[in-house]
Amino acid sequence: MHRSLSLAALSLAAAAVFATTAWAQAPRREPAVNDTLASPEVSSDHRVTFRIFAPKASEVTLTGDWLGSTPAPKLSKDERGVWSVTLGPFEPSIYIYSFNVDGMAIPDPVNPRIKLRARTSASMVEVKDDTSAFWEPRDVPHGAVEINWEKSKAIAGETRAIWIYTPPGYAKTTGRYPVLYLLHGSNDTAAGWTMAGNANFVLDNLLAGGKTLPMIVVMPFGHATPFGVPAAQGAVANDALFEDYLLQDVIPTVEARYRVSPGRENRAIAGLSMGGGQSLRIGLGHLDLFSAVASFSGAVPADFETRFAGLLKDSKGTNEKIKTLWIGCGQQDSLFGRSKSLADLLAKYQVRHIFYPTDGVHNYTVWRKYLAEYAPLLFR
Amino acid sequence: MHRSLSLAALSLAAAAVFATTAWAQAPRREPAVNDTLASPEVSSDHRVTFRIFAPKASEVTLTGDWLGSTPAPKLSKDERGVWSVTLGPFEPSIYIYSFNVDGMAIPDPVNPRIKLRARTSASMVEVKDDTSAFWEPRDVPHGAVEINWEKSKAIAGETRAIWIYTPPGYAKTTGRYPVLYLLHGSNDTAAGWTMAGNANFVLDNLLAGGKTLPMIVVMPFGHATPFGVPAAQGAVANDALFEDYLLQDVIPTVEARYRVSPGRENRAIAGLSMGGGQSLRIGLGHLDLFSAVASFSGAVPADFETRFAGLLKDSKGTNEKIKTLWIGCGQQDSLFGRSKSLADLLAKYQVRHIFYPTDGVHNYTVWRKYLAEYAPLLFR
Repeated sequence: MHRSLSLAALSLAAAAVFATTAWAQAPRREPAVNDTLASPEVSSDHRVTFRIFAPKASEVTLTGDWLGSTPAPKLSKDERGVWSVTLGPFEPSIYIYSFNVDGMAIPDPVNPRIKLRARTSASMVEVKDDTSAFWEPRDVPHGAVEINWEKSKAIAGETRAIWIYTPPGYAKTTGRYPVLYLLHGSNDTAAGWTMAGNANFVLDNLLAGGKTLPMIVVMPFGHATPFGVPAAQGAVANDALFEDYLLQDVIPTVEARYRVSPGRENRAIAGLSMGGGQSLRIGLGHLDLFSAVASFSGAVPADFETRFAGLLKDSKGTNEKIKTLWIGCGQQDSLFGRSKSLADLLAKYQVRHIFYPTDGVHNYTVWRKYLAEYAPLLFR
Repeated sequence: MHRSLSLAALSLAAAAVFATTAWAQAPRREPAVNDTLASPEVSSDHRVTFRIFAPKASEVTLTGDWLGSTPAPKLSKDERGVWSVTLGPFEPSIYIYSFNVDGMAIPDPVNPRIKLRARTSASMVEVKDDTSAFWEPRDVPHGAVEINWEKSKAIAGETRAIWIYTPPGYAKTTGRYPVLYLLHGSNDTAAGWTMAGNANFVLDNLLAGGKTLPMIVVMPFGHATPFGVPAAQGAVANDALFEDYLLQDVIPTVEARYRVSPGRENRAIAGLSMGGGQSLRIGLGHLDLFSAVASFSGAVPADFETRFAGLLKDSKGTNEKIKTLWIGCGQQDSLFGRSKSLADLLAKYQVRHIFYPTDGVHNYTVWRKYLAEYAPLLFR
């Protein structure tokens, strides 16, 4: 360690290096046009203008999680090389989008609000109303989301992060809380329900309105096998290993570190898309551990009827065990048929459930609403 | 709410929709080549190959936080339209990089490990050694990082996130802990010290090795005024408002929510780059609140000698108040002169300090080391 003992006078030349500007972490090499480019720009009438500086590109289109099967909108280029398109008006929400520049799918280069993914990344744009929505931070007590790292037993060699919401005042109380295990979709991460789903603010607002009981919400990373190469393989293998991970690592970690209420009546499991399938598999497969199960726009297991034959046939016993079996899906979602078929199957076997079809496609605009509908039903 | 009461038989047609594949959250429109593209790819000899599929681009270069003033390496294109370059070997670390595709600065489209920024974003690549480094997760007890949201008093209308590290076992203990306020650089976010700096793992490892006392580390968002338009203005205004935010919001929130040891001897403040300047301004400006101050590659205030004239002239009194004044900078950093000049100035006035010049440029490879050097000196 060097300790300066020099008493040399400070030269005027040295003083000149005390510049006033802030200093970026890396040399800025972007063209100047990006320094002032606004993207996305949300107008008061809830229209959004998306812009990207791509002077040499020949075609730029937009991918958006609100588009469903609609063709990708094309952007048009101005004389500076800035491509833009204005869309909407949008229903207030947080939307996920990316640009496709000559075949390259990329997040918005100047938008800091990134949707992290298991592979690739995208951007987010928030459209706000005059009054803050049920998923926005209101002037109410806020819970916190804690990132816990733990070396996994089930997934050898990995130290994995679990994101865990604790209700307002958790640290100052001594009570125990029920737990909702809340799972994300394919190509998402453990941060998804917080950073895109605003699950923490949804819960804060419900609690402030007296609509839910305080609960801990556990958000693990749903990809247990390496994701994405190739993207569509390995879903079944992943679901099996993720189940081991949840049972051997996540639940024991949560129950060792947090003040949780014991027993199946204080554990619920819910998830969106891939996570909806995982919730059904794990929740209904372990009714000794869980008393409530939900699938939001779920990737319902293909073998549901054979996998859960016993549960379906003994519907009286099943109905005694499950406090809430909740199945929601947007009718414009390409997965809608799978939820509808599951609801029909449960109805056929007289397994009690709530089927909650809504408007909507396959996005967090729908899932935030489902969380706000589902959480108030829990632990009553 | 719709509750399905239908007992209609499940049709074979409906059963066909139970597909086995996982389901991405948004329609995948990327070209197939991206599904199997590996980027970045780290070889066992610590070389890294960066790749991007950009079939129509005319020039692709790489920006990297290890490059300093070195010209941006050019990538070359293969017959598939994939551009690549292999660099290194690298010293084990986590590096930040981005591509510049025909003037567009973008993160790596297929790399999920994103460096979040206040404006724009980039990617990260980790080069590991055979044995886990001081900044990697080892098989030791892990602390947690909790994201706390609080409506700001100083910055009207904003609900801001503060990232807070608590040492292993915090929730199970009843003791109080000293607090290090740890600030990030310009264009970084409250997540930076955790997601790029691995501050949590650095502290976990130091603690497991008996090298530090357990402490709470508070990482607020250092941009109090809107960042980036235009990028280089407003540093002084930001520093003033950030000081208000830290004093009026961050410290009171931390002291209300966490079990912290009281008094100035249990508060330290350190930061990198812009955050180094903020630490000097706030820490030395409030010796009633802080007893230890550090600047890592800091943007030293231009008016240091006049701003702290009283403190410099009363060096005997100052030396009694400050337990550790620590100034580190890489000698290949373009900011090195500012730290050197500060050290000379302090030496001239006989203000006790540690000047710690090292090899290195302006990046987290250096700042992780500085945190590991500095934290053991605290609260002794």
